Order: sequence, then C-alpha cells, then structure tokens
Amino acid sequence: MSFDQKEMFNLMYKLARLTVPDTRVEYDSMGPVSVPLDRLFGPQTMRSVMNFQIGGMEERMPRPIIVALGMLKKAAALANQDLGLDPKVAEAISSAADEVISGKLYDEHHFPLVIWQAGSGAHTNMNVNEVICNRAIELLGGQMGSKNPVDPHEHVNKFQCSNDGFSSAVNIAVAMELQEKLYPALRRVIDTLGQKQQLWKDIIKIGRTHLMDAVPLTLGQEFSGYKQMMTHSRERLDSALSRLYQLSLGGCLVGTGYISPKDFSSKCVKQIATITGLPFVNAPNLFEALGCRDELVELHGVLNAIAASTMKIANDIRFLGSGPRCGLGELQLPENEPGSSIMPGKVNPTQCEAITMICAQIMGNQVAVSVGGANGHFELNAFMPLIASNVLRSIVLLSDGLEALNKNCLEGIQANTARIKSIMNESLMLVTALNPHIGYDRAALIAKTAHANGTTLRQEAINEGITGADFDNWVRPENMLGPE
Amino acid sequence: MSFDQKEMFNLMYKLARLTVPDTRVEYDSMGPVSVPLDRLFGPQTMRSVMNFQIGGMEERMPRPIIVALGMLKKAAALANQDLGLDPKVAEAISSAADEVISGKLYDEHHFPLVIWQAGSGAHTNMNVNEVICNRAIELLGGQMGSKNPVDPHEHVNKFQCSNDGFSSAVNIAVAMELQEKLYPALRRVIDTLGQKQQLWKDIIKIGRTHLMDAVPLTLGQEFSGYKQMMTHSRERLDSALSRLYQLSLGGCLVGTGYISPKDFSSKCVKQIATITGLPFVNAPNLFEALGCRDELVELHGVLNAIAASTMKIANDIRFLGSGPRCGLGELQLPENEPGSSIMPGKVNPTQCEAITMICAQIMGNQVAVSVGGANGHFELNAFMPLIASNVLRSIVLLSDGLEALNKNCLEGIQANTARIKSIMNESLMLVTALNPHIGYDRAALIAKTAHANGTTLRQEAINEGITGADFDNWVRPENMLGPE
Amino acid sequence: MSFDQKEMFNLMYKLARLTVPDTRVEYDSMGPVSVPLDRLFGPQTMRSVMNFQIGGMEERMPRPIIVALGMLKKAAALANQDLGLDPKVAEAISSAADEVISGKLYDEHHFPLVIWQAGSGAHTNMNVNEVICNRAIELLGGQMGSKNPVDPHEHVNKFQCSNDGFSSAVNIAVAMELQEKLYPALRRVIDTLGQKQQLWKDIIKIGRTHLMDAVPLTLGQEFSGYKQMMTHSRERLDSALSRLYQLSLGGCLVGTGYISPKDFSSKCVKQIATITGLPFVNAPNLFEALGCRDELVELHGVLNAIAASTMKIANDIRFLGSGPRCGLGELQLPENEPGSSIMPGKVNPTQCEAITMICAQIMGNQVAVSVGGANGHFELNAFMPLIASNVLRSIVLLSDGLEALNKNCLEGIQANTARIKSIMNESLMLVTALNPHIGYDRAALIAKTAHANGTTLRQEAINEGITGADFDNWVRPENMLGPE
Amino acid sequence: MSFDQKEMFNLMYKLARLTVPDTRVEYDSMGPVSVPLDRLFGPQTMRSVMNFQIGGMEERMPRPIIVALGMLKKAAALANQDLGLDPKVAEAISSAADEVISGKLYDEHHFPLVIWQAGSGAHTNMNVNEVICNRAIELLGGQMGSKNPVDPHEHVNKFQCSNDGFSSAVNIAVAMELQEKLYPALRRVIDTLGQKQQLWKDIIKIGRTHLMDAVPLTLGQEFSGYKQMMTHSRERLDSALSRLYQLSLGGCLVGTGYISPKDFSSKCVKQIATITGLPFVNAPNLFEALGCRDELVELHGVLNAIAASTMKIANDIRFLGSGPRCGLGELQLPENEPGSSIMPGKVNPTQCEAITMICAQIMGNQVAVSVGGANGHFELNAFMPLIASNVLRSIVLLSDGLEALNKNCLEGIQANTARIKSIMNESLMLVTALNPHIGYDRAALIAKTAHANGTTLRQEAINEGITGADFDNWVRPENMLGPE
Repeated sequence: MSFDQKEMFNLMYKLARLTVPDTRVEYDSMGPVSVPLDRLFGPQTMRSVMNFQIGGMEERMPRPIIVALGMLKKAAALANQDLGLDPKVAEAISSAADEVISGKLYDEHHFPLVIWQAGSGAHTNMNVNEVICNRAIELLGGQMGSKNPVDPHEHVNKFQCSNDGFSSAVNIAVAMELQEKLYPALRRVIDTLGQKQQLWKDIIKIGRTHLMDAVPLTLGQEFSGYKQMMTHSRERLDSALSRLYQLSLGGCLVGTGYISPKDFSSKCVKQIATITGLPFVNAPNLFEALGCRDELVELHGVLNAIAASTMKIANDIRFLGSGPRCGLGELQLPENEPGSSIMPGKVNPTQCEAITMICAQIMGNQVAVSVGGANGHFELNAFMPLIASNVLRSIVLLSDGLEALNKNCLEGIQANTARIKSIMNESLMLVTALNPHIGYDRAALIAKTAHANGTTLRQEAINEGITGADFDNWVRPENMLGPE
Repeated sequence: MSFDQKEMFNLMYKLARLTVPDTRVEYDSMGPVSVPLDRLFGPQTMRSVMNFQIGGMEERMPRPIIVALGMLKKAAALANQDLGLDPKVAEAISSAADEVISGKLYDEHHFPLVIWQAGSGAHTNMNVNEVICNRAIELLGGQMGSKNPVDPHEHVNKFQCSNDGFSSAVNIAVAMELQEKLYPALRRVIDTLGQKQQLWKDIIKIGRTHLMDAVPLTLGQEFSGYKQMMTHSRERLDSALSRLYQLSLGGCLVGTGYISPKDFSSKCVKQIATITGLPFVNAPNLFEALGCRDELVELHGVLNAIAASTMKIANDIRFLGSGPRCGLGELQLPENEPGSSIMPGKVNPTQCEAITMICAQIMGNQVAVSVGGANGHFELNAFMPLIASNVLRSIVLLSDGLEALNKNCLEGIQANTARIKSIMNESLMLVTALNPHIGYDRAALIAKTAHANGTTLRQEAINEGITGADFDNWVRPENMLGPE
Repeated sequence: MSFDQKEMFNLMYKLARLTVPDTRVEYDSMGPVSVPLDRLFGPQTMRSVMNFQIGGMEERMPRPIIVALGMLKKAAALANQDLGLDPKVAEAISSAADEVISGKLYDEHHFPLVIWQAGSGAHTNMNVNEVICNRAIELLGGQMGSKNPVDPHEHVNKFQCSNDGFSSAVNIAVAMELQEKLYPALRRVIDTLGQKQQLWKDIIKIGRTHLMDAVPLTLGQEFSGYKQMMTHSRERLDSALSRLYQLSLGGCLVGTGYISPKDFSSKCVKQIATITGLPFVNAPNLFEALGCRDELVELHGVLNAIAASTMKIANDIRFLGSGPRCGLGELQLPENEPGSSIMPGKVNPTQCEAITMICAQIMGNQVAVSVGGANGHFELNAFMPLIASNVLRSIVLLSDGLEALNKNCLEGIQANTARIKSIMNESLMLVTALNPHIGYDRAALIAKTAHANGTTLRQEAINEGITGADFDNWVRPENMLGPE
Repeated sequence: MSFDQKEMFNLMYKLARLTVPDTRVEYDSMGPVSVPLDRLFGPQTMRSVMNFQIGGMEERMPRPIIVALGMLKKAAALANQDLGLDPKVAEAISSAADEVISGKLYDEHHFPLVIWQAGSGAHTNMNVNEVICNRAIELLGGQMGSKNPVDPHEHVNKFQCSNDGFSSAVNIAVAMELQEKLYPALRRVIDTLGQKQQLWKDIIKIGRTHLMDAVPLTLGQEFSGYKQMMTHSRERLDSALSRLYQLSLGGCLVGTGYISPKDFSSKCVKQIATITGLPFVNAPNLFEALGCRDELVELHGVLNAIAASTMKIANDIRFLGSGPRCGLGELQLPENEPGSSIMPGKVNPTQCEAITMICAQIMGNQVAVSVGGANGHFELNAFMPLIASNVLRSIVLLSDGLEALNKNCLEGIQANTARIKSIMNESLMLVTALNPHIGYDRAALIAKTAHANGTTLRQEAINEGITGADFDNWVRPENMLGPE
C-alpha cells in the first residue's frame, strides 16, 4: 500500500469514529458515516474503504471501469430525462458524469475502492453514484451529502441496479480498451511484421523444426507467418465482440427488469452506443446476461490465444537473436540499455523478456477469469470485479507490451545476412534436395556420413559417386522455397 | 497399464532383441527391427513403442486422430492418383485407409503409440503409413514389410510430411468430433432446457443474488437463462470454426511446400472436404499453419467458456435440488442410484458432480493447451500430441457429460412447487415492491424489523401504518416478473 | 496509469531529449541520459522508464522487493567493509540503504520501474544501485550523478550481479512478507475459528454431503475442521521455507561466483540473516540457485493449497449464511454495509466474495508462476519479476483478505440456533440411527416413504411397526456425534 | 471408447432391460438389476455403468485406486475380525481382496467404472465391495449375488463409508505410486546427472544468461545444477508426505465417526500401514480430513514444481543439442529413431519433447486439482475422483517420462567438446576478465568494437593498447570458474 493511501485509510478510519472539523456526516440506510470534507464520495464508499483494506492503491478498481460507469450514468440520466426526470437534475448528473468520463475525478482520488469488495461490484457502483451525486449537487449550488436536489439512489442510479449497472459498465470498459489499445497495438505490429516480410523476402535461411536444422525458407517467409498469427489474432477478437456488445441493462436485480420501465433500457443502451461510438445492444436474455459472465470468459480465451501466439513469436526472435557469438545469431536486436552490470557489451532481449512474462501472466489470468466465471450462483455472478480486473489487465499489458515490443524491438531488428548465409550453407539438411534424384535412403546415408565426419554434403556426395556438377545443380537453396 | 498391452510391450521388447519365429524383420533408415507377425505396423512404430513406455494403454493417441489420418491418407492417395500415382497402388492405399477410417484397425490394436512421443506426432504419422502400407501390400498379394509394391514413404506419405500431415489430421479429428459429439449434445441440452422454460413459465420463485434472497422470477425464466448460455456456447463454437478448417497441408516441412507439387495440396484438401463433408480449405499462410496451433488454443478457449457456463448451471441445479429437508429443495432431481452406502433414502446429485468435475478438468486442459501453444519454436510447433489430446479429451468429456446430464438429470428434473411457493412467500425481499410507494428507507426499515422479529413483512408494514389492503395490492409477486 | 506518473513519464521523455535546466545529465556505458533533478535515480533507470511504458503506476515493481534490495545493499556494504571497502563509503551506502529499507525513498517515487522489464530484474537492481549511490553521494556532500566518491557499480553493486542480487532480494522479500503478513493473518484466523469451535461445541446441526442432508454433527465440530485446515496451511508454509531461505548470492553471473571473492557471499548472507532476523543461508548449489526459481514455484504451490482451503471455508460460510428466509440460514453474518442499492434489508456475504475472488486470483497466479518457472533458460531464469510479483501479490491478497474476513466476518458470525435445530429435526437422515436396529433396507424404506409423503420419520416408523418409544430411544442426534 | 468396452456397454445396457439367460439378477435398495453372469460386480456398479457413459475405457478409474481399495478392504476385514467379525467371513474377504490387490481382477475387467461418477467415489467403493463380496461368496461356495454368507454393505464395507473409505484409498494409492514410481525415477535421474557432473567436470563452456553469451562455466557445473534441482524435487516430495499419510478412516459419513466403533479406525489404519509398509496414521481432525483434499492440492503443487524444474532441464538439453550445424550443438543426443519422414539424417530431441509435453500436462492438471480442491462443500469434498485421477496421472506420466528420458536420452548424451571449445573461444564475454584490470567502461568498449568489427577481443585489446601477454595472462577461462 503506498504511503498516501495508507495515510488516507488511517485518517478515514479515525474520522468514521470521531466527528472532527474536516469531515462531514452523511447517511445511508445503516446510519451516519463521517466522510472527508474534500472527497466527493459518501457513506457507502467509506464503509467499503474501512471493511476492505486489501492491498491498497495497487489493487484499486481499474480506471476504465470508473470511466465506463461515468458513461453509463450519463446515458442513464439522458434516458431518464426522456422518461420524465427533471432536466435540471439530469443535466447536472450528465455534467458531473463528464468529469468522471474524462478521468479527472479518478485522478483526484475520489474512487478509492479496491477490486476485492462485493462480488457484484456494488460498492464501486455506489462510489460512482455518490461522487456524481455530490458533484451534481455542487454544480447546482447545493450542499454535499444533503441528497438534495440530487439523490444517489433515486436519481443517479435511477432504474438501474448494481447488478446490471456494474456488469454493463464492465463490458463497456473492456470494449473501449480493446478499441483504444489492443486493436491499434495489433495494427502496428502487423504493419512492422509486414515491412520485415517485404524487406527480407530474398534472404534465404535455414528452417528449423524440433530445434533441428531443416530445409531453407526466407526470413521474409518466416516473418509472414508471424504476421499471419497477428492477423488471425485480430480476427479472433472480432469473433468475440458480438457477445461482448450485449448489455445486461434492464435486467435490474435478477433479470426480470422489475422496477424499471419498459423503455428505459433500450433508450439507455442507445445513449451508450452514441457516447462510445460502439454498437452496444440489449442482451437477448437478461437472466443469462446477469447470471454469467461467459462473454468475458470467451473474450479472455481469445486474449489467451493471442498471448500464446505472441509468446511464440517473442521466443523465436530472442532465440534467433541469441549470441552474439555463441548462439544462433541470425538477428540483431536493437540495443536499448546496457545488458549487464558486469559484462560489458552484453545486450539482452529485454523486450522479448517483458512480453513473454506478460504472456505468462495472461495465461494465469485466464484461470482466474475461468474460475470466476464458473462459480457464479443463481441469478448473479458474484465474481465480477475479479473477472473484469483480469480481463482489463490482460488487455493493457498485452497492448502496452506489444507497443513496446514493436517500437523498441521489432522495428529495429536487423538481419545478420552474413551469418544467416554462412550457417545455412553448412547445413546438412539441404540433402533433402537429393531425395528425388537418388532416393531417401541413399540421401540419408550421405547426410549421416557428412555428420559423422564433420565434412560437407558435397564432399560426401562425390565420395558416393555423384558428380560435383549434378550436386550443384540439384542442391540449390533458392529452388527449395516453394512447391516444385 | 492394462494387462494385455503390458504383455504386448514386454513381448515387443524381447522381440526387438531376439529374432524369434513369430516376428518378421523390417528395415528403416536406422536398420532392422523385429516386428510381431500379426501386427500391421513396422519398424518405426516399434522403435516408438520401445522408446516411449509412458503410461501405456490409457495414454494412447486418441482414436479420432488415427481415423482422421486414415481420411488424410485416402485423400492423398486420390490426389496423387490424379497427379500420376499408379491407380493400383492408389486404390490399395485407399482401401486400406478405409479400414483405418472405420476404426477396425484401431480396435485390433495396430496403433499402439502413446501421446508422449515426438512433438510433431511424426511417430503416429509413420504408424499410420506403415499400417496402411502393409495392409495395402496384403490386399495386393504382396509380402508385409517388403515395401513392395507399396512403400510407406514414397506412396502412402507421398507429398506430405509428418508436420503438415499430422497437424492437418488433428484439425480434421477435432472438427469431426465437434460435429459428431459436441454439437448434438448441445442441441439436446438446449431442447431440454427449452422444454423446462416452457413447462415452468408460470412457477414463481424467489430469485437469489449473492446467495441471498432477492426479488422473484419464474422458474421458466431461470431456465431460459441456462438455455441462452448453451445457445451462446454453440455460437462461440461457430465463431472458432473458420480458423479450424484451415489446413496446413502443402506446407510440408517448414511451410514452403518444398518437395510437393503445386497442385497436390489443393486437390488433397478438396478430397478431405468431400470425405468429411466439412468445409476444409488450404490455410492462407503455411508458415503460420505449421509454426503455431493457435486455432486449437482459440478453440479450447471456447470449450473452456462452455465449461464455465456448464459448471454454473450444474452448480445451480444441485443447490436448487439440495435437501431434501435441510437445503433449498426447489427442484427434485431424478433418482438414478442409491446415494449412500449407509444413509438410506439419500439421493445425490451425481450427474452434476460428474459434469462439474469434467468442467474443472477442462479448465486444467486449457492450461496444458496454452502452454503447448506458446512453446512452439521456429517453423514447427512440437507440442502437437499434447494439444490435440487435450482438445479431443475436452470435447469427448464435455459431450458425453452433457449427454449423461441431459438424459439422467435434466430431462427428469421436477419442480417442488409447494416448497417453491412456500419459501417465496416467506421472503422479506418482496419488500422491494413497497419502494415506489413508501420510499427506500422506510421500506428497508420494515424489512429489517421483520427480519429482527422473525415476523412477516405484512405484519410489520401494518405496524408501520400501511393498511393491509394497500400491502396486498402493492406486494404481488406476479407483478414483479418484468418491467413496469 | 495514474495521472502523476503519466505526467512524470511525459516529462522524462522530453527531458531525455532536451537538456533543460531542471535535469542533470548522467552517463552509463551507452552514453549520456538526462535525469530529473529531484530524482535520485540515474541513467539506467531512465532508459528503462522510457523503454518499458507498460501499465504504469499499477504495474510497479512491488515495494517489498525494493525494501529487500535495500537490505541486500546494506548487507553487501557491511560485508565489503570487512573485505576492505573504504568505511566512509560503506557507511554512506549503509545509511542510504536504510532510507530504502524504511520505504521512504519508495514512497517518494524514486523507484518508478515496472514489473515488465528485464527478466533478471536487472533494471530494478540498477535503480536501487543508482538511488543508493546518489543518496550516499549526497550524504557525503558530493554531487549527484558524479559517481564520486560512490560508484553504483563499483561500490553499491560490488561483488554482486543483477542475477544473484535480484534473485536473493526476491527471496528476502517473500520471506519477510510471509512473516509480517501471512503468518499473523493465519494465526488470527486460527484463533477465531478455535473460539467458534469452543463456543459452538454443543450446537447440534445437520451435516451435509453432496449438498444433501446427512447425519448430524456439532457446529463446533464443523468449525474445528476449518481450524485444522488453517493449521495445516501454516505447516505447509513451514515445509517450504527451508528452500526459500537458500540464497543465490555469490553465484554472480552464471553460478561460478567469478569476480567475487570467496568470503563475500557467506559474510553478506550472515548480514542479511542479522538484518532480517530470518535464517537465510548460502544455497548449496549456485547453478541451481540461479538457473531456476523452483523454490518460489513450490512456495506458490503452498499458497495455492491455502487458497483452495480458504475458498472452501468461505463458500461454506456464505452458503450456511444464505437466506435470510429462503436459504440455509444457519449462520448470521455481520452486517457491514447495505447490501443492495434497491432491496432494503439485504445484507450480502461480501467478505466471502472478496476472499473467494482472491483465491481464484491465486489459482491464476499459480499458472503464471509455473509457466515462468518452467521457461528459464540455461544459467539464469529470466522470468523473475513475473514470478516474484505474483508470489508477493498472492501473499498480500491472501493476508489482507484473511485479516478482513476475520475481522469483518468470522469474528462476528452468530449461530441461528433456532433455525439450526428446526431444520435438523426435520431431516430424514436421522434414519441412519435406525440401521443397527432394523437393518439398512427397512430403514431406507421408512425414509423414502416419509420423503414421498412429506411426513416425519417417526410417523412412518410407527406405521412400519416400530414403537414411538423405541424410535425416540434410538434416534437421538446427541448420540450421533462420535463413534459408538 | 475401445471396441470391447463399447460392446460390453451395449450388452449391459440391453441386459439391464431384458432378463436373458447369461445374466443374473441382483438387488440393491432401489430394486433389481441384471448383471452379466461372468462379472463379479453387482447392481450398483451396473447402475453407474449405465448412467455414466462418459469417455469409456480411456476414462476408467485408475488402477492404483482399485488396488488401494483392495488393501483397505483387507485391512478393514482384519480389523473387523479383531472386533468380532466371523473369521470365516473375514478371511474370505481378505482372500478376495488379495486378488484385487494383485491387479488380477482389474485386468479381468471387473472394475468398469469411469472417473466421472459420484464425486465421493462412492460408485467405485461399491464396485469394490460388490466384487470382493461376490468373490468371497464364491470362495466360500455360495451363490453370487445372494449376499450370503457375505454382504457387501454389512461385511465388506463394515464400519466404513464411501466418504472415508474412498478418500483413504486415494491417499494410499498416491503414496504407493510415489514410492514405486516417482522416487525411483528421480533417483535414477539424479544418478545419471551426477555421473555427467563428474564426467564433464573439466569441459569449459560458455555460460548463457538471457540466451546471450556470458562468462564460462564447466559442463559439469551446469549439470550439477540440474542434479540439485532433482535433489530438491525429492526433498519437496518428502515435505508433503506427512500430511498425505493422514487417513480420514473413522470419519465415516461426516467426520463424527458415527456408526463405527471407537477402535475400528486405529486398528484398520495400523493394518494399512502393515500392508503397505508406509507410515499411515489417523488424521488429527476427521472433519478436515473429509471436508477437503488439501493434502492432494499441496502434493500436486510439489509435482507441479518438479514439472517446472524438469521442463527447464529438458528445454536446456534440447537447445544445447540443437543443430547439428545451425544450432548451439554443444551436446549430441542419442539417436533413437529416424527424425523425419523426409529429411534424412535428422535426429530430433523427441525424449525432451515427450517430457516437456508431460510437464505442460501437469501444469494443467494442477488447475483441475485446485479447482476441485476449492469447490468441496460442507462435510465432504465431492470432486475426489477428479483430484485423484489427476494426481495419479501426473505421477505416472512424470515417472515414466523421467525414466524414458533418463534411459533414452540423458544416459547417452555426449559432449561435443570441439564445438564447445570453439564457440567459447569466440565469445566476447571473456572480456569480463578485463574488468578488474582496465575498468568496466574500457572493457565494454573493447567488446563492442570487436562485436562491431567481427574481430576477436585480443585483437581489439591490443588496438586499445593492452599487450598480448597481458591479455593472455588476464583472459583465461580456466580462471573464471569460481570465486577469486
């Protein structure tokens, strides 16, 4: 827990017990609570702060969820205005929500709650209700905590419930983060890989299967495979989106929508689509939409697949770049920082290390998300903050990690053409080119003999009675790069 | 290891060292190997049997992969015939392959290899080549092991390679299992849930969130949510299929397709599409298609999401059926077997237990698949048998488990309508219906007082000054099942 | 990323390119870098800040690692003084290290690096070297960045290397966190569970297996099981500690200890034992100690087992507390906050929700740690920050979560004795008491008939010809609580 | 599902509905069931066969559990004889149990049940009761299915219950498998690694960190690290055993021990200790012993740590053996089979591939075990067959995999001394030896220049003004293998 929040916690703890001059008292259905004067949140936030002292600052509910709740509250206010809410109140809520959406109120520490709270995210939903309420009251010249002329329940949360509100906000947050972070990162990586594919299309190199020398391909072909992996990654994301865009709004408490008027949820979801610019719709079945978070389990399955792909690529690159003298040495990775505090000249593949660590984290997050998804009970999944925080963390780590990899590694990779050529020419696996001419078994014998004697294929082929001219004619790497 | 295979292993082990009368000797590029006379496989299979004594019978390469390799070899023979292969040889291969496809040769123990072998599945590819070759030789009246007139490499494996052959067979096997097992199982479960939704559409029950009493819904609504989960499950599978149908055939060793003629792979894939009736296509990039198994990591992510969904449903059902006297008792599960060796009359939710154990297994398999997917190196992923066996096991367990659940549990569930009604009427949460009339705080007070005193809401509402008539008018569960 | 760090990042980014008045220039082996004047860190920290913009503030290297590196640097300075380092320099380093140990310099933002950096943790090791160096220079009246009279490499990092330094610091951090957080939390939970065991030793309740009614036990017995789980948890931790206490110090770069004098590591480890009060020793084999992080994989396996245990207990408690009217209702959990923004009087098991979410997170972290542990290569595991951050996060979440659970839930749980008694008496499973008197099959029949008719066991037993007196004599829950 | 079991299933299914001549009818508390005449099992086994058609033969309850239940039933018969059971009955049970213990009855297909059944393993417990009962009746000349003179409940299962019986048998099975398989496998691997350590103690090679060239060590030192990992693995197992040896016997249904006499469980456990030769004891708290399977979650955490260790070693070996010409090429792995169906002379690290696939499987199994461990409810964990089958599978795969790796790979590895020497001498990292003589920065410059120019360190050192004699004196790999 970082020092300032610790202090804040301590302060709050004392405050809740003493009425001291720099606090105000607010009430909820359980009674009065003292709240720091300079904070916009109210009693339910304070209760959660005191009851869930778990991990502190590092474990806060992720920012995108707060922002998405801001969007949701704004959309709800506009929908409610349509349905008769006093325009003055609706506009004040909308303005206060804008300050949440901009991130300003988050950055000013009005959202102190941690992930580890009510499994419905109810505390954070109330935190947002309280902050928007108090800020709207301020904007209207009222007194914070007075619930007048704006009430957190009856106005800000109107026709919503923590259950459908928080779960909808999670989907909004995830969809926004995908659009703003992961898609652009994938695009940039795809572009870079495509450039390498083009740039290196004529560099012939040894292929490797089982880590052992195989037949040649071009470095451009190798990178075209990586590019395809990332292109497929993007398609995988696309496939999962349609279910992510289905919002549980209107389900209210258990999916029936009881206490909300028929039109509210469709109006509200339309506003959300407008605000976000994304095609959100009302979920086809609200019992499903509240009872499980399958769409996030599915989506994280896609992130996990992208992580597997990314780990493979980053591993290949660091192995191909290993050396400089005692490894494979085919690629030269950019030097971004001194690699060792002792060994001079050592430049390590730290970008590959960072991203592969991230991929391992995502494989772990996958389990957390799945366990959370599987353990919801009855009408509401109560592992939502767990699921949401892992999905969002996987997105931000993968996005930022790919951006850093792209900028600080991929873009600057250079091919060690001399080394690539030299080791390919030593390879015994070019012997495959002899198969159609002399048969598998005889070709194998030549390769084995050369291997045993440390000689070249050409030498042993001649010993085996093949003419040098035939050998040179038959064994040409540039003829081994595609179907016959 | 079961007794017959153990004996077989022991036998083989001895045989490989002694030339005894009931073996024949076959040769591969490493030399002679003794093979049991009554087995169709050859030297490379024997080497793998001896070198990978890991787990025995229980750990055999799954049957669907062998069947799929049979399909592949048949398709390849037909394609090769088109490209000039002696029709007599092609037809013999095709006939022998039919016996693999039917499962006959598998059931007669000609495919003894375990999952834990070469990471490319090369040993199993050779096992199939050898068996088909020897069987084709038999059909043509030749001598087993003679490679004449059919050769395992030059004819059965013609223009393929373990790399593209095995990986394509895996995708074929997975796609077939989905079509034959998982889709039908999902359909039946969806049908049953749909019937329950209809049947129980008027049974009003208490809803539960956070395991705590909430507002009412109908039992039909609750099951409509489960049905939607399974419908979404099917859509998720659909989303992943397009990438599964992309085959690596034609990639050969490293993706370049070297040694295979241009037309072979498209002809072969068309034959596969015909044989399977599924829309397989050539992969757009063969370096990707060999270098990773992302499509299987993605697909297992979907299986994992279905498992999360299924676990949620099965958990709900066993909790709703808990009792008979001291649990929730809303559902009556069918009695399939005595539940306890001691406590008479105890009937346990064993179908739910079986399927939730399966779901946990699938969550574990997800990790195995992901680690395998992430750790491929360079031109070939060498964790293929691991990935394939986990995907196939997840499919068969999920399919069989859902079928058993459906037949032995879901179909026979009955609603305990008396119990459902009785506990709903005791619920304090109907108080929500008072909110619009007397406000949140006053309603809360009534509920709390009733809770403290162990009284009914109605009683405390009257104490609070509400008339009985108003109460009865306001608090009607049948009016709480949808938006206002 | 929170706003202040984002600003800091932007600032640094600009600063590194422009020489502006409020920066100083420092040099490392790759050249000059501009560093903010008010920060103690130097050029290598700046390079990492710029190259690894991944996740920001939320993803910082955990505080306990920085503190542990402070301890390590202090211990090294003292050991080096013994081996001839200028006492003035050693003391300055030691004093500066004390400020790291206290957390002061961390809280003042001198350690901005994120987890996702070099896989050896080298960047953070250099961050600490640079901060201690500059602070020591300040204390000695020198000029920051001058490397005079203290040099980050030649004095602060003397005879260490990022490899053995960072990996030792991780083990120190983990051991300290266990002592300071997890052991005390377990002790408090064990105490509370012991009190409940004692308090409730005479409350007889229905037992449940397969979620179905079984034979009775006391609530005290039930909680004695939970207490034993936590006691075993503590023993499991004890078992793993001996390998955690083995430090890789002295291994230096690859395990040989090259460049460090023979005595350094034993002297340094002794100092660490003194500073921490924990029995750290030199690892028996330094190639193992650097090449893998198995002791952390093992330890996290224990944390994972504790999580499984904890999840079971928390699930039981929330199910036992479910209701208030339509659930099991045996326990009354404390009311800490309003449970629903709409349903008055609803109090949710939020502490159980928080801790079960934490347990799911730990199961996920287990995978991340295992993948990281398995993927180290050659002489150094390069997934250390991943592994360390997950182990530390699991410890802090589990510790804080258990403390919150204990204080805000376990301590205040009350038994609903009336409800417990009433449902137990309705149970059909007391029929087991008839087995020895009338046989299993006849007893089963009575239970089934009562179940079918909705009657009591006693009634049906009498119908079956047993006298009421015999029944009352035979079926006594208080006689069913132990062996005969 | 393999053909013979499928046929058996079909047969049984028909039999259960028709009374045909080759079946007999047996009864349980739910009524009559037709059972195949040539099978020893009875009605409850038949019900499970019909209700759980999940996966077939491949998914059978693992053999070691059946064997362990045989031991348990024998021990119980002996204990019960002590407590008054008719010696004739007790001896017949004991003799029948011996046939279970030998594996004979398992191999003759009397235990057809799959893992996916009752979560308590009750069906398998009854399967064993029925088989032993019928076999004991046979031995005593009675009629199978008559329950006379031996009854499955009242004699074979006497004073036990599925709950404590099955869970105790699981621990017995796991402990036996560890002793018989994993400990010996570890011992053999440790021996081989120790031999390599000794054999290669003077072969100096380049060290690698971050995959990049580092300072030298000997190949013997490198392998000593691997040996230590395996030695630690064994210690980790030892640490977990004490809790595995605690049996739940005597807990009966819910932990109270109701229906079992006080002395039964201690007598029975003593017999088990005698039969197995392992120090089994009565668990200190039977509510814990039934309510969770934490000791197996803990133990699998150790298996998971061993898997991480093993994967690291196997990865290192295959990378060190990569080539033959275009990889690292330091080791020569034994040639066990032809590596490619096309590329002659290619020998792949298939043993490393098999074992790393196994390690990935174990990481997956870890999740399945943890989810199962965490999801037990109330007095009984009902994920036991899942947990048990995963723990046992991990043990057998790891054991067999290590044995195969040892015999077919480790023992036969040879060092390519010429290659090792040649690449080490090219390394730029020997420059570290210059640090103490010319300082870090100047040494770094020399290394970088040599890197840029493709020259040797010696050449650039001389250009930098160092004499050749000084260089040769300072840069000696043999002096870089330990502390100064």
